[in-house]
Amino acid sequence: TVVGRYESAIPGAPALLLGSHIDTVRDAGRYDGTLGVIAGLVAVAELSKRSEKLPFAIEVVAFGDEEGVRFPTTLTSSRALAGIFDPAVLDLCDVEGVSLRKALIAFSCDPAAIAGVAKSREEVLAYVEVHIEQGPVLESANLPVGVVTAINGVRRLAVAVIGEAGHAGTVPMQLRRDALTAAAEMVLSVERVANSLPDAVATVGRMEVFPCAVNVIPGSVQFTIDVRSPDDTHRDAATEEITRSIRKIAADRRVEVSISATHEAPATACSPVMIDALSRAIKHLGYATRLLPSGAGHDAMALAQLCHIGMLFVRCAGGISHNPKEAISLQDADICVRILLEFLRNFKPI
Amino acid sequence: TVVGRYESAIPGAPALLLGSHIDTVRDAGRYDGTLGVIAGLVAVAELSKRSEKLPFAIEVVAFGDEEGVRFPTTLTSSRALAGIFDPAVLDLCDVEGVSLRKALIAFSCDPAAIAGVAKSREEVLAYVEVHIEQGPVLESANLPVGVVTAINGVRRLAVAVIGEAGHAGTVPMQLRRDALTAAAEMVLSVERVANSLPDAVATVGRMEVFPCAVNVIPGSVQFTIDVRSPDDTHRDAATEEITRSIRKIAADRRVEVSISATHEAPATACSPVMIDALSRAIKHLGYATRLLPSGAGHDAMALAQLCHIGMLFVRCAGGISHNPKEAISLQDADICVRILLEFLRNFKPI
Repeated sequence: TVVGRYESAIPGAPALLLGSHIDTVRDAGRYDGTLGVIAGLVAVAELSKRSEKLPFAIEVVAFGDEEGVRFPTTLTSSRALAGIFDPAVLDLCDVEGVSLRKALIAFSCDPAAIAGVAKSREEVLAYVEVHIEQGPVLESANLPVGVVTAINGVRRLAVAVIGEAGHAGTVPMQLRRDALTAAAEMVLSVERVANSLPDAVATVGRMEVFPCAVNVIPGSVQFTIDVRSPDDTHRDAATEEITRSIRKIAADRRVEVSISATHEAPATACSPVMIDALSRAIKHLGYATRLLPSGAGHDAMALAQLCHIGMLFVRCAGGISHNPKEAISLQDADICVRILLEFLRNFKPI
Repeated sequence: TVVGRYESAIPGAPALLLGSHIDTVRDAGRYDGTLGVIAGLVAVAELSKRSEKLPFAIEVVAFGDEEGVRFPTTLTSSRALAGIFDPAVLDLCDVEGVSLRKALIAFSCDPAAIAGVAKSREEVLAYVEVHIEQGPVLESANLPVGVVTAINGVRRLAVAVIGEAGHAGTVPMQLRRDALTAAAEMVLSVERVANSLPDAVATVGRMEVFPCAVNVIPGSVQFTIDVRSPDDTHRDAATEEITRSIRKIAADRRVEVSISATHEAPATACSPVMIDALSRAIKHLGYATRLLPSGAGHDAMALAQLCHIGMLFVRCAGGISHNPKEAISLQDADICVRILLEFLRNFKPI
């Protein structure tokens, strides 16, 4: 993680953190993460050029590891800064068996120094992250930016449906226990539950059919469910409703089903004061203020353990991210820096 | 193919053919095919033991290649006997690139002699095939045997659904073009159409989801449909209704769909006189006569091009076939031979 400090009018004053991550996934785009770092640098450069000093320092933070591409953990850099880095993570290994600890040492880093990176609550006022939306909401609303209300919580389920395989020609419809028709009905129930709740999304992303032959009635199907909501109560209610619905479909169709929870992360709310301050800056520049949840995870989730957090989303073409086609317009980039400057000039230490 | 002849009271009289195949699939059971050959042999042995001569000869036929396990063609032996063997098939190759022609020569067979194997219509009265049901209908009806009305025709379709992949967290439900929820609705429409027609079955046996990741909305799905009916008109109507329904679902969900026909075989009706003669034999032994279509293909399909055909199905445990668990009871085997004998003793050359 690289940190640059723009000193306050009062030397040593607490800092507002601006930043995001500078790692990304393989075969990625150019804006995921880096936009938030560059936007912070450009805003500070503008202040510096005009010799504007604020009643607080600004630290632009470029986190080195958010995605967890090499090691099976995410947000390690922002967790370190927020003082919630779990040292057990140092023993996690990459696919070649190299531990994070060994990799850091080989890179001339001292794992024992990680604890010292943590900021104290007194040093930090708040954290603001500019990030591409990675979704289609702003584009479809024809808006350059939006303010994040919360980073969605997620629950993931793994579902296995066990029916009975059979010859596609010889088993009459009414004697079948087809695992795929049961799973199809379950997929539609997942969609129906998500549609019934505001801001919730639910996705069946993986599905595998066995034995998967043109002339064999599927004997079993495995699939995953990913449920997200900015509101953990909604998310849990949706998950329960989905589970209930799946069990009923299985009973009605005389197939067995097993449902197991594989992952859970609570929602992280953005601070109302930050949402409000960012919204006022957007309004000041003449744009409608659109509030939206973040479906993806961000460094702000870790920083929320340390300080107030706010996030500004920037429209991205087609909602496409983690893809070389990832794109934003120069105009939108300009708008987001202007909003950031407006926000900074009006920000009152909380 | 091995053929054994039991001479008639009138030497050289036309023959009734009894038989089935003695090849099977890999990792198969013990009854698929062989039951029909053994039942014919046992029936003839019984006649021979009692020195009973009939007004027609009996030929027990053990076909060597019905399943098409090694070469990409089926029913080669019964087609040869029926005089409808296509010599072009000799150039088809196995997975190692060996042609059927070369394999036959290496086995000391003469491919040029195949045409000479064909029976003439004058030599053959009819073909009767005893076969395990390979389905659960007789077991669920608590009957040892049933009479086949027709070997179902089949149509197969390959369907590709193209939606839009996206992040499972960032794309709101109403902006999604999820290929899997669309495919799920299509799978249920296939089931609904088959349920609405008597004796028709339709199966989605293969389904593959792309990119198939827990946190990615499926961008495309490919699946197969297999539609069967003893009545080609029903089968074609079902296929059209399924196609119409799939196109409507695609349009409603704003996904693209392509549907291509991959295979078609018409239904083969069993001869009414044979259905009647087998039914009377069953009734004579005191069992209810259950008529049912055959969902799977059989050598009788080829023989239908030469002569009248009839098929007697024998109950198999759990409807399971092409599996080492394939099983019939000794009692049912005995019943089917007694029915065959009753049929033979009463059969009037057609």
